[in-house]
Amino acid sequence: MIPVAEALEKVLAARSVPATESVPLYQCPGRILAEDIAADRAFPPFDRVTMDGIALWLDGRAEEGMYRIEATTYAGEPAGKLASRSGAVEVMTGAVLPEGTNTVVRYEDLAFSEHFGSRFASLKAGVVPGQNIHRKGEDRAEGSLLLKAGTRIGSPEVAILATVGRPSVQVYRNPSVCLVSTGDELVDIHETPLPHQIRRSSTYQLSAALREIGIKSDIQHLRDDADGLFRALQTYLRQHDILILTGGVSAGKKDYLPEVLERLGVTRQFHQVAQRPGKPLWFGTTADGKAVFALPGNPVSTFLCFLKYVRPFLGHGPKGKPVATLSEQVIFKPDLTYFMPVATYYNEEGRHVARPLKGSGSGDFANLLECTGFLELPVGRTDFAAGEVFPYLPF
Amino acid sequence: MIPVAEALEKVLAARSVPATESVPLYQCPGRILAEDIAADRAFPPFDRVTMDGIALWLDGRAEEGMYRIEATTYAGEPAGKLASRSGAVEVMTGAVLPEGTNTVVRYEDLAFSEHFGSRFASLKAGVVPGQNIHRKGEDRAEGSLLLKAGTRIGSPEVAILATVGRPSVQVYRNPSVCLVSTGDELVDIHETPLPHQIRRSSTYQLSAALREIGIKSDIQHLRDDADGLFRALQTYLRQHDILILTGGVSAGKKDYLPEVLERLGVTRQFHQVAQRPGKPLWFGTTADGKAVFALPGNPVSTFLCFLKYVRPFLGHGPKGKPVATLSEQVIFKPDLTYFMPVATYYNEEGRHVARPLKGSGSGDFANLLECTGFLELPVGRTDFAAGEVFPYLPF
Repeated sequence: MIPVAEALEKVLAARSVPATESVPLYQCPGRILAEDIAADRAFPPFDRVTMDGIALWLDGRAEEGMYRIEATTYAGEPAGKLASRSGAVEVMTGAVLPEGTNTVVRYEDLAFSEHFGSRFASLKAGVVPGQNIHRKGEDRAEGSLLLKAGTRIGSPEVAILATVGRPSVQVYRNPSVCLVSTGDELVDIHETPLPHQIRRSSTYQLSAALREIGIKSDIQHLRDDADGLFRALQTYLRQHDILILTGGVSAGKKDYLPEVLERLGVTRQFHQVAQRPGKPLWFGTTADGKAVFALPGNPVSTFLCFLKYVRPFLGHGPKGKPVATLSEQVIFKPDLTYFMPVATYYNEEGRHVARPLKGSGSGDFANLLECTGFLELPVGRTDFAAGEVFPYLPF
Repeated sequence: MIPVAEALEKVLAARSVPATESVPLYQCPGRILAEDIAADRAFPPFDRVTMDGIALWLDGRAEEGMYRIEATTYAGEPAGKLASRSGAVEVMTGAVLPEGTNTVVRYEDLAFSEHFGSRFASLKAGVVPGQNIHRKGEDRAEGSLLLKAGTRIGSPEVAILATVGRPSVQVYRNPSVCLVSTGDELVDIHETPLPHQIRRSSTYQLSAALREIGIKSDIQHLRDDADGLFRALQTYLRQHDILILTGGVSAGKKDYLPEVLERLGVTRQFHQVAQRPGKPLWFGTTADGKAVFALPGNPVSTFLCFLKYVRPFLGHGPKGKPVATLSEQVIFKPDLTYFMPVATYYNEEGRHVARPLKGSGSGDFANLLECTGFLELPVGRTDFAAGEVFPYLPF
């Protein structure tokens, strides 16, 4: 039995750099970027007008007087040019600032009039030279690094990739994952269970959780039969990069998985972690870089192990270091790290508060509905006070 | 110009109950459930053994002595039966508790021995009658409501749907969404822009944000030409349930959208919201239940309006009422609600803290990379102190 931190370390150490592939931009959300992305131009690429109005030249002189409208520049037109310093160019948001101007005044601060067949604008409000212009390169210089390889691609990253002209992008190839439930008491979801049977749920849940991070998976089920497990897992190991098994790793008489996996040449990295739920967790690797997670079969244990170990292994651990404040005292005597199912909320003082969920422990999957994540109460203590802050593992 | 709360109210009031459809369980994540889901059996459906060990009968009598192992019951087998109160049944996790037993003792608390050809177990540690049994119906009674129509389906909900035997599920049909950018300065992502042009990014970003909530969308682009807009939007309105337009809704000379949309029979619900960014937002509906959002074209404005109005319209608003604590003083003078781009983190006291992001305002999309969401600073004030708590709109 090893401590939680050591188990996580071993899991992360077993990661290898996956192959890369080129995917169309629309398929990028949720994928991990495999190349650095630099600005192909300055951002913005020109002095950009940010208000509809007029562009003119202002220096120290009085801002009174009328400016003759010489021309209009729309967004999408090449840069115009101001001919006379007593004139102005009407400009639209997104247009290039006309040459010879340095300030934009919005319509709301202007009065227009007509004289001698020309349009004139006069200023109604105080004007600050340089205003309402988004300067070339103000956000980013040409060539500057915008996105680093390893970044998870969300919608803001998609905006950047579009802006620099990337209809396709190099991302890390998603692993091929096979989810395998074991347990003779389990029947499939379209079957009617006998009184002593229950339907399989964990592999469906894991498949959904993987889908949420953009990873497709196969779902299989195997009976508690050592030879049958050996033959089927041999095939799945050939076909997939990662096996995630549920059940069959405790001390029971039909818990064949640890023995079968070692017979298959999977090197055990650890078996049993000093945690509740999820103590029987088994993790191993093969010489050709495949990984096998054998998760305990109780639904809450299965899901905790997925969140804490499998998801970071896949490069989708939580962003930042989430924490939450315990809402009430908790006593926990076993000498184990306690991942306590909680529902979190924000209180009026802006605190992120975790409320412990009562329940029947790792068997009570219905509790997961209210649950927003797990609060990680450290090993070596038994008494955890209301108001204390602990690491939080969100769904 | 209307206040933010009123705008959101009008948007939500325009929602109608969508049609439903049946989808396979694996496609459910991210969808909205359209039926109530009840427990088809008690949860658990039988008195379930939660540890590998032995099951025996304990009442007030001494717990000393040896128990003869009569039989073994595995998970997936029909309930066994204890023949004699001086005996025990070996049981595996997940098995049905044998008739005539009321307590399970795990292997770790047992010593085994052989006498006269039989196996006996004696108790090493104190035993609490009733322990290590997950009682039938302890989590949920048969027939009890597990999931309500309207629930967003995440992976825990998938586990429930699997458990009650639902290979397919009634969900609300996703709307057909068309994203349309406008603006003559915009070229497509595979083109090389001229110096006065930029590439389109907002529709790609919105498409990615919609994909993250499971909604597919078409992407179109139209030039700033009133007749061309009229003809194309007429077609898109026929083909889709929701149009999301970007650009062309300000006071500029080519901002044709409000006029074109009203010519197309789209009833304006509002134009302009007392907010920054995103003031020019336009929203309208048709007699046959379609919705049109015309979002301002600056990338940060576009995204704020999407998060604040469009996403809740689609039934995917934030869960709960997230808030965050302002990390430093902010002065904001305009008489508008200020959706300030921030990066949030949790501090050591468990507080959710929002750090304002400097930048060039609504044009600086590169700022979105650091940004985790917007802090909503209310209208009618100009000075916001460090330590104050405000509503937070996460990405």
